[in-house]
Amino acid sequence: MTDLFKTDRLETLLPQLEAFFWEEIAPLEKDFLSQPFNQVAQKCEALREKAKEKGLWGLHLSEKQGGLGLSLVEFGQLSELLGQSPLGHYVFNCQAPDIGNMELLAHAGTEVQKEQFLQPLLEGKIRSCFAMTEPQFAGSNPVHMATKAEKKGEHYIINGHKWFTTAADGATFSIVMAITHPEAPKHQRASMIIVPTDTAGFVLVRNIPIMGEEGEGYMSHAEIKYENCQVPQSYLIGEEGQGFALAQQRLGPGRIHHCMRWIGICERAFAMMCQRAVSRELSPETSLADKQVIQHWIAEARANINAARLMVLDTARQIDLYGARAAKDAISSIKFFVSDILMKTLDRAIQVHGALGITDDTILSFWYRHERGARIYDGADEVHKSALARSVLKQYR
Amino acid sequence: MTDLFKTDRLETLLPQLEAFFWEEIAPLEKDFLSQPFNQVAQKCEALREKAKEKGLWGLHLSEKQGGLGLSLVEFGQLSELLGQSPLGHYVFNCQAPDIGNMELLAHAGTEVQKEQFLQPLLEGKIRSCFAMTEPQFAGSNPVHMATKAEKKGEHYIINGHKWFTTAADGATFSIVMAITHPEAPKHQRASMIIVPTDTAGFVLVRNIPIMGEEGEGYMSHAEIKYENCQVPQSYLIGEEGQGFALAQQRLGPGRIHHCMRWIGICERAFAMMCQRAVSRELSPETSLADKQVIQHWIAEARANINAARLMVLDTARQIDLYGARAAKDAISSIKFFVSDILMKTLDRAIQVHGALGITDDTILSFWYRHERGARIYDGADEVHKSALARSVLKQYR
Amino acid sequence: MTDLFKTDRLETLLPQLEAFFWEEIAPLEKDFLSQPFNQVAQKCEALREKAKEKGLWGLHLSEKQGGLGLSLVEFGQLSELLGQSPLGHYVFNCQAPDIGNMELLAHAGTEVQKEQFLQPLLEGKIRSCFAMTEPQFAGSNPVHMATKAEKKGEHYIINGHKWFTTAADGATFSIVMAITHPEAPKHQRASMIIVPTDTAGFVLVRNIPIMGEEGEGYMSHAEIKYENCQVPQSYLIGEEGQGFALAQQRLGPGRIHHCMRWIGICERAFAMMCQRAVSRELSPETSLADKQVIQHWIAEARANINAARLMVLDTARQIDLYGARAAKDAISSIKFFVSDILMKTLDRAIQVHGALGITDDTILSFWYRHERGARIYDGADEVHKSALARSVLKQYR
Amino acid sequence: MTDLFKTDRLETLLPQLEAFFWEEIAPLEKDFLSQPFNQVAQKCEALREKAKEKGLWGLHLSEKQGGLGLSLVEFGQLSELLGQSPLGHYVFNCQAPDIGNMELLAHAGTEVQKEQFLQPLLEGKIRSCFAMTEPQFAGSNPVHMATKAEKKGEHYIINGHKWFTTAADGATFSIVMAITHPEAPKHQRASMIIVPTDTAGFVLVRNIPIMGEEGEGYMSHAEIKYENCQVPQSYLIGEEGQGFALAQQRLGPGRIHHCMRWIGICERAFAMMCQRAVSRELSPETSLADKQVIQHWIAEARANINAARLMVLDTARQIDLYGARAAKDAISSIKFFVSDILMKTLDRAIQVHGALGITDDTILSFWYRHERGARIYDGADEVHKSALARSVLKQYR
Repeated sequence: MTDLFKTDRLETLLPQLEAFFWEEIAPLEKDFLSQPFNQVAQKCEALREKAKEKGLWGLHLSEKQGGLGLSLVEFGQLSELLGQSPLGHYVFNCQAPDIGNMELLAHAGTEVQKEQFLQPLLEGKIRSCFAMTEPQFAGSNPVHMATKAEKKGEHYIINGHKWFTTAADGATFSIVMAITHPEAPKHQRASMIIVPTDTAGFVLVRNIPIMGEEGEGYMSHAEIKYENCQVPQSYLIGEEGQGFALAQQRLGPGRIHHCMRWIGICERAFAMMCQRAVSRELSPETSLADKQVIQHWIAEARANINAARLMVLDTARQIDLYGARAAKDAISSIKFFVSDILMKTLDRAIQVHGALGITDDTILSFWYRHERGARIYDGADEVHKSALARSVLKQYR
Repeated sequence: MTDLFKTDRLETLLPQLEAFFWEEIAPLEKDFLSQPFNQVAQKCEALREKAKEKGLWGLHLSEKQGGLGLSLVEFGQLSELLGQSPLGHYVFNCQAPDIGNMELLAHAGTEVQKEQFLQPLLEGKIRSCFAMTEPQFAGSNPVHMATKAEKKGEHYIINGHKWFTTAADGATFSIVMAITHPEAPKHQRASMIIVPTDTAGFVLVRNIPIMGEEGEGYMSHAEIKYENCQVPQSYLIGEEGQGFALAQQRLGPGRIHHCMRWIGICERAFAMMCQRAVSRELSPETSLADKQVIQHWIAEARANINAARLMVLDTARQIDLYGARAAKDAISSIKFFVSDILMKTLDRAIQVHGALGITDDTILSFWYRHERGARIYDGADEVHKSALARSVLKQYR
Repeated sequence: MTDLFKTDRLETLLPQLEAFFWEEIAPLEKDFLSQPFNQVAQKCEALREKAKEKGLWGLHLSEKQGGLGLSLVEFGQLSELLGQSPLGHYVFNCQAPDIGNMELLAHAGTEVQKEQFLQPLLEGKIRSCFAMTEPQFAGSNPVHMATKAEKKGEHYIINGHKWFTTAADGATFSIVMAITHPEAPKHQRASMIIVPTDTAGFVLVRNIPIMGEEGEGYMSHAEIKYENCQVPQSYLIGEEGQGFALAQQRLGPGRIHHCMRWIGICERAFAMMCQRAVSRELSPETSLADKQVIQHWIAEARANINAARLMVLDTARQIDLYGARAAKDAISSIKFFVSDILMKTLDRAIQVHGALGITDDTILSFWYRHERGARIYDGADEVHKSALARSVLKQYR
Repeated sequence: MTDLFKTDRLETLLPQLEAFFWEEIAPLEKDFLSQPFNQVAQKCEALREKAKEKGLWGLHLSEKQGGLGLSLVEFGQLSELLGQSPLGHYVFNCQAPDIGNMELLAHAGTEVQKEQFLQPLLEGKIRSCFAMTEPQFAGSNPVHMATKAEKKGEHYIINGHKWFTTAADGATFSIVMAITHPEAPKHQRASMIIVPTDTAGFVLVRNIPIMGEEGEGYMSHAEIKYENCQVPQSYLIGEEGQGFALAQQRLGPGRIHHCMRWIGICERAFAMMCQRAVSRELSPETSLADKQVIQHWIAEARANINAARLMVLDTARQIDLYGARAAKDAISSIKFFVSDILMKTLDRAIQVHGALGITDDTILSFWYRHERGARIYDGADEVHKSALARSVLKQYR
């Protein structure tokens, strides 16, 4: 571990957050593993109030937004802590996709949109979702989609079929990517439009069963049909045709949020792997920790996670200093570099746990299943590798 | 693919079984993915009757047992076909752990045991389970256990705590490894005893939730307490103190059964990966199949699976010719060699499917979750690697 | 190891060849590691006579050619033995590129060519080379070349620049790929022409220093300029425009010859790794063989090499039965599958040897350097992977 | 790449050094690849004078020693530049093993030793070597050795057999690890003694041929016998029995020097890989850079090297702030983390170069051969992994 990115504020804040995390959030893990999510979510609501009381609210928000005004480097180090529980970010209201939607609305929303949609989101009173992926189109080509928004009077009429709309179940509104200008150049065809989920024609077909679980509420990914959904034109975010550009802006920092959280998962899996190694007897005289192969897995995991953290926090630093666009190669790098380390670390932590590792008696199997998507969502790793390479190779032509 | 191990019998039998498989079993996959297992199991029962009618019953049984009297090499090639569905082996009554128990009772059971327990098992009228692993002891040390069977009059009184007793839910009897001679040399302490599941004190604590699913019936893994379970001494299999030796005999061929099935899973995942690659458009002109990285995954998977098959069938051949003991190094080799290829193949098949790959809309995510145990059960891969190495190194000392 | 491909002839022949190999060839390794090659080559010549006396000559030749008339499967198992020394194939006159040239001339040469060039080659009286690769063109596109042969009277005038012409130094003739029909369809432009190395204008620019060594004689790879080389038109092999087709025919089996040899290298490296593990003390009580990580390397190498052998011999079997064209996917598979295992095995054998492993005191470092090309020559692994994938994917379209 | 560790001094110094490197040192690479080292060494001597004139001398030295007084973090970034040529460190007199000997003598040498041995070393007037490894003892157990130094009058009489004494050929003195107290606890048996190479009985048996090359002068690794070498007791460094402790002190920072240099090699290989990819035509329309697999290699290499650099420079920072002992886990981590990335990067750079990559026409094959030792020397990677794991696991017991 490194103290390279420590700041004075963190010096104070991190221990407070650690105490809160281990005393309040970590103990909910058992419930999380055995109860329907909405039941656990209620306990999280209560913790949100406690967090507010302790002045820990708004880790990701500017002071103007009522938050702590931390840099991304600082937030990244707190985010790593929160990532050690599947509930950490949720309790602190900085969970995806809401955190991305907050950033998006803060940056490109109208004042009315901010008041109506952003403010309650910031306060954790409502949840939201983001509708981009469509089952018929490869996610690796983000300008390839069929959902349309056509103008009719003062409204948009939206028709389309989306899936993997995370956390749609129970959300108050969705931000929908839809084609408004089919004749425009490829990257200027789509727009982003807010669609409240109680709009007629917003049909949540199902929470998609993923790796054996449908989930519910925040912890779900929906398939949704938009059937003649009618919303006022004032629900457009930014300008028409800007959908792709806004999505890029939204996803850039979004990716680093995932990476920060993954470091947390890695650290937790690592700690569990070490604890298991020292406590699992092979015979009265020896434990797993005496096995050279286990030792090497631990050493490799330690080095890998350290490298992943440095990469992520250095990227956060670059975003803080130079903006997400300037840091795009760094962002692509961590997307595939960290997701790979994440899955390897989880895999080995499971192996060290033996049969216990594949049960739901520990959190490892949840992450093994639900973070397999890490190498797919927000741009498959393969897409980021090609993007990075093309950017690098430009300098050599 | 190779025709190296084809035989005349297979020439006739394989096409018949293929027809049955694709017409009768494969279509149940959709139900399997969306319904509780016991509901699907009923449909499988009906198929068993059909299989009997068609003369396809007893793929793994000797003619004396009413089966087809195939060699292991022949059975292996059929088993690969069956492995392409999670229901294949079940329909043909050659699923673990029952197939292992059949082999065990046929080899070491008394006539009475054969009549009472083996015969209905062969006929597919009952199911059974095998209780070895204990939560408090590392599976890598099979002589390390706490379950005890003490003699009292003409009975054994069994006390202990087991888990990962596959398919205990709904089984008629369990074969339990228990210490009968705590003072004997390590490998002669345990015995194998049949415990009917309706014995007082047989407490099925829970079907262990594994990778998000408790499962039910055959498709489950139970935690079981044996609380003063009393069974007649005639339920002893073989002789007292032979438990470890019998377990070795049972597990040797058992491992190859898994490997044969894994080849089937690999082939199915491979076919799905190829179908997805050619059918998934990236743009109107290109599909995933045009991507060089996808091509290389396909080529590597093809070569790996071919290698795995050759290794498994050559091992089966050695067992047929020289017996399982002589083939023990080959068996250890395939245990870790094939499980590794299995998990890599599934992982890449999922990645080629993108978001769809992590849903339960295809069978891939089921296997990704439930075959993760392949590297752990029947001896963790690490244990087999060390065993193989020690055997090899003996020749160099 | 497997006895799957044993035959009666092998039963007799292999022990004879083993005796010869370990008594006569293996002891030359020390000289090979410390003396210029041409010095060692003389000792090999003497061994050729001994081999002839013992009736071991012509392992790769038909009876008609004065050889033993072995199948490719049989030869493969002998070839594996010979591969355990860098001199094995050379002593038995079945070294690349001569073995490929023998096959080519036997198949497509005229009677005069056979008498003049093939016969002395079969007898081991001369050596030959094969000139295809050009420095300015990527080897992955074999129809992309600049060397030209223009007709003038009864001759061809050849101009061009080739490199990686293996064993040109000291060869009697070269078989040169040259464009004779620049306007023809891509695959029909080139022809194969015999160019004696004493032809005026045949300029051996240098033996290319490869991995620190220029080498000499057979053990070298030359850069060659063809400057108005004039040869009679009767030196054309086959027909004009057939060059590419003949090269494909020549390379198909050629690739399996490399793979067979690589298995031999793997086995030797494996044996050295095991010997080192048991003999290298870490302390008076422990040796490297007690280290779990070393054990796992040994187990993984054992399984990998077994798999590689099965893949190679099954491919040989397919070629024997169905011809090289029908086996082309199998040939592509082993090209990349075995070269990868080869390099991994050598790498780990070196690591087990520690500092000794990188010295020239053992043969490992020679192979580590000179077999790195295995993943490049005869079609880079990447080319074979794409070829295999395209062939496989055709079945799914 | 990151600007995370930039400093004001570097802002000025790095461009100066870059200019010097690319104008003066890089052009010598061609000579290095084709001439005996001692010939090239003379040209390096001339460059040393130029460097001194430009005020670039003493990059690794304190101001007191006549150097620039840079921090290790600063030096690390310069060292990375120098590492891009096999001559970079040599020109600046900060090559191993001399840099380690300078550190050692500066820290533990007597005033007389400093005057006699350190001063000319600092000035680049002489070279030195360090004799630890013995052929009969595994390097992984550094307290296991046979070389003895026995007192006789005012002298030590040294007898022993060492190898892998880097750069002994032409060195003025060797620092020899020898047992002086065979009866002491294991870690207190050895002492470090200076042995001038013109001492009677100092027998340089051979420059060990490594990966095909004996080398000469600085660029060699010798096998040496010490046969009754007699040196004054004043040549003892530190105190008797401190040999192991001093070696630890010497090797800790020594390892980071290698890692810094490896980053330079990685960057150079990366640049070559990119240049080759864009310039190598596959057909008139496409180049290697268009191949997705090549792109992914480039992306993975970019991310890996970035991670390696962050790890190394963060370790340097820790050593600057807290000392090498406190940073020992970080040092172990980078030893195996970076050496692995180094070898992977070189391997892929070679593959992208095709046949050219294995020739000595580029520097890649030199590094491929001579850095294979990176995973062995200064503690095999396996030793560092176990050391790191044990250190980590302590916290969990």
